[in-house]
Amino acid sequence: MRGYSQSGSRFFMRFFMWFAGKEAAMLKECLENVRRTAPLIHNITNYVTINDVANVLLACGARPIMSDEAEDAAQITSVCAGLNINLGQLHKTGVEGMLRAGKRANELGNPVVLDPVGVGVSDFRRETAGRLLKEIRFTAIRGNASEIRALAEGRKTAGGVDADAWDAVTGGRLERDAAFAKAFSAQTGCIIAMTGSLDLVADASRCFLIRNGKEQMSRVTGTGCQLSGLMAAFLASNPGKALEAAASAVCTMGLAGELAFDRMREDEGNATYRNRIIDAVYLMTGEELERGARMELL
Amino acid sequence: MRGYSQSGSRFFMRFFMWFAGKEAAMLKECLENVRRTAPLIHNITNYVTINDVANVLLACGARPIMSDEAEDAAQITSVCAGLNINLGQLHKTGVEGMLRAGKRANELGNPVVLDPVGVGVSDFRRETAGRLLKEIRFTAIRGNASEIRALAEGRKTAGGVDADAWDAVTGGRLERDAAFAKAFSAQTGCIIAMTGSLDLVADASRCFLIRNGKEQMSRVTGTGCQLSGLMAAFLASNPGKALEAAASAVCTMGLAGELAFDRMREDEGNATYRNRIIDAVYLMTGEELERGARMELL
Amino acid sequence: MRGYSQSGSRFFMRFFMWFAGKEAAMLKECLENVRRTAPLIHNITNYVTINDVANVLLACGARPIMSDEAEDAAQITSVCAGLNINLGQLHKTGVEGMLRAGKRANELGNPVVLDPVGVGVSDFRRETAGRLLKEIRFTAIRGNASEIRALAEGRKTAGGVDADAWDAVTGGRLERDAAFAKAFSAQTGCIIAMTGSLDLVADASRCFLIRNGKEQMSRVTGTGCQLSGLMAAFLASNPGKALEAAASAVCTMGLAGELAFDRMREDEGNATYRNRIIDAVYLMTGEELERGARMELL
Repeated sequence: MRGYSQSGSRFFMRFFMWFAGKEAAMLKECLENVRRTAPLIHNITNYVTINDVANVLLACGARPIMSDEAEDAAQITSVCAGLNINLGQLHKTGVEGMLRAGKRANELGNPVVLDPVGVGVSDFRRETAGRLLKEIRFTAIRGNASEIRALAEGRKTAGGVDADAWDAVTGGRLERDAAFAKAFSAQTGCIIAMTGSLDLVADASRCFLIRNGKEQMSRVTGTGCQLSGLMAAFLASNPGKALEAAASAVCTMGLAGELAFDRMREDEGNATYRNRIIDAVYLMTGEELERGARMELL
Repeated sequence: MRGYSQSGSRFFMRFFMWFAGKEAAMLKECLENVRRTAPLIHNITNYVTINDVANVLLACGARPIMSDEAEDAAQITSVCAGLNINLGQLHKTGVEGMLRAGKRANELGNPVVLDPVGVGVSDFRRETAGRLLKEIRFTAIRGNASEIRALAEGRKTAGGVDADAWDAVTGGRLERDAAFAKAFSAQTGCIIAMTGSLDLVADASRCFLIRNGKEQMSRVTGTGCQLSGLMAAFLASNPGKALEAAASAVCTMGLAGELAFDRMREDEGNATYRNRIIDAVYLMTGEELERGARMELL
Repeated sequence: MRGYSQSGSRFFMRFFMWFAGKEAAMLKECLENVRRTAPLIHNITNYVTINDVANVLLACGARPIMSDEAEDAAQITSVCAGLNINLGQLHKTGVEGMLRAGKRANELGNPVVLDPVGVGVSDFRRETAGRLLKEIRFTAIRGNASEIRALAEGRKTAGGVDADAWDAVTGGRLERDAAFAKAFSAQTGCIIAMTGSLDLVADASRCFLIRNGKEQMSRVTGTGCQLSGLMAAFLASNPGKALEAAASAVCTMGLAGELAFDRMREDEGNATYRNRIIDAVYLMTGEELERGARMELL
């Protein structure tokens, strides 16, 4: 029995390593496709982190363009390969541009990402998210655990734009969280990316757990917004592989946070960390991502 | 007589050092209360420096949220512990959100800070400031000397968003400036913070003079806006001690400017200084603030 | 004959060096005039790069003020020495402020710069640019080659906010490009600055070719927007020398990109490069500009 069990575990380890190697190679390929195709990404995003979103898109090899005016949103989207809609600091006057751009992207078959910033905090944000989800087919929804839950369950949250502690994805209930993410994906038809100290990226049948990232990233405003921008670029450059592309964007951002943290000096704080994270995306090679990604299928 | 005079001066020195020690310990406590309570701060602020305001709030241990849409401003404020209203790059469409958020914060008893950026430059900004002061009870007003004077006297200024030279607080007329600040505080019921190369922070009966800061901070856009954000956080985390909290925020920002300047390398300029200032807030300990603050009661 | 040819070439070299020396001294003088006069510059500019525009203006010694509200745009312009209008992320509600500010600046005789970001991408941006050009007298227009051509020829572009490859100014057709720039200057009455890997700065009769800059600047969002801000400051501080002032701004930005690149460390990427470019403007001396500018009359 002992022999059998050993060889069974050996077989499993080999299978696991073959699988993990294949996944890691796929993460690398997704990043390299962004670098190779330099997709133009239309961002309708909040003004707090709009500059960082532009610079992180340039860092990963994509090209950003910003327009939130209803008058030209659809035309801007028409020359782009992907669309990123972010509800942070939402304005009433901006909703029409989101709808027009989203519908145009749908017509073109371009990927569309929704980042429902603070969706549980106000009726206006929740109702706008509901309207967008009804009128636009999103490829992926990326938010923290509270935002995704607020979106799924229509409930309110108290923590502003951060996740409430009880919502966070933690080691203790991974299976339940993965089941929730898959079910919400099945319901919406979108890739669901719940990011935090642990990240889940799911479609209706599979859910990846990603362990990259650093707690200190939460002390830099807009790392989530940046990730949503990256995700639109990764989706645009990797058609037909939405789950893998989304997961690759999440690993890229998380690993950038780790590499940047290692480069911090003693006299540096969150503002320099902000720059170093974007720098790390800029410098990241496919090999680095392949080696550094910590992803597993749940 | 000589003996008496000596022991009188010794007594005074001891009293002064006891008092200064008590004040410095209070500054430290105010910062540590921010770190401990992590207040959620609602910012309605200009888009020039909105990212810096968010990052400096994260640096001091608070949590920022931004919304300037009338539709959800009141609900956002409802989950927050403090509100920061900034008139820089003011939009007509933004005034209603300021009013709703301010009134809601008043109902909740939350502190509200007004930063009257460039209030003396246009009728629109002056009239808006007047309307806000009429309809909202502010806890503190923070501006440069020209802005505070323009607000107090309804007059125009020429220097854009910087203080006109003749308005600046300087060594030569500190008592007159302190009397002005106290009188304006008595009139408005707000803590008055006039900041520049020297800073005054006053309520109706007391005025602190603060000598922290670096001239080069004026070459970084938005250090004033950042300070107003910090002040809202310090007020939120230190209820019942508004003057001390406001002074602690001013010392924190000024000392951060000094520490950041000491960390500058020869090949660095104002953009890196911007980051180093926020980094210095992030790294600042209560002890560092206690030791480095240069504050006296006028 | 050999001797004659040699002395002819010597004479030409001496003349060229005398001329080049005179031009370089003029570039230096233009920068020093900005430092000396500290002009207040009104910017109506996109929110993606608005913070960078403010900081680069502070870096060169000017003072920025931002307002895009029709209600106070004219009054803001009235206390300023120059105006910078940028069409990036254009809003319908912002156009009226541009018109009022532009007309006021024209009345005052202040220089006005137009940066037609992405003008070939949407009807709204193209029509707005057309309207602005009809109602405001611009001193200079600065854009990439695609934007300038789209403006001149009313045609569409595909590359978002970057220049299409076939539009770029390259070594192979400099004379044709220079003739185009001069003709467009003659038609509009504006200095035309077409910037990219090579820069052309032309009035109706002269065209400078500038070889400063680094390819990597295109991986930092907003270096073009920053240059337009600088140009407004240089024009404001150098009345009567618009071509030279515009060329000096272009050399300053390009040389800053080179100096900043030399200061980059191995672990730094585009976000840090962004800061180092602004830092390099801050640190740049007139002598450095005189030595480092690579400009010739075509």
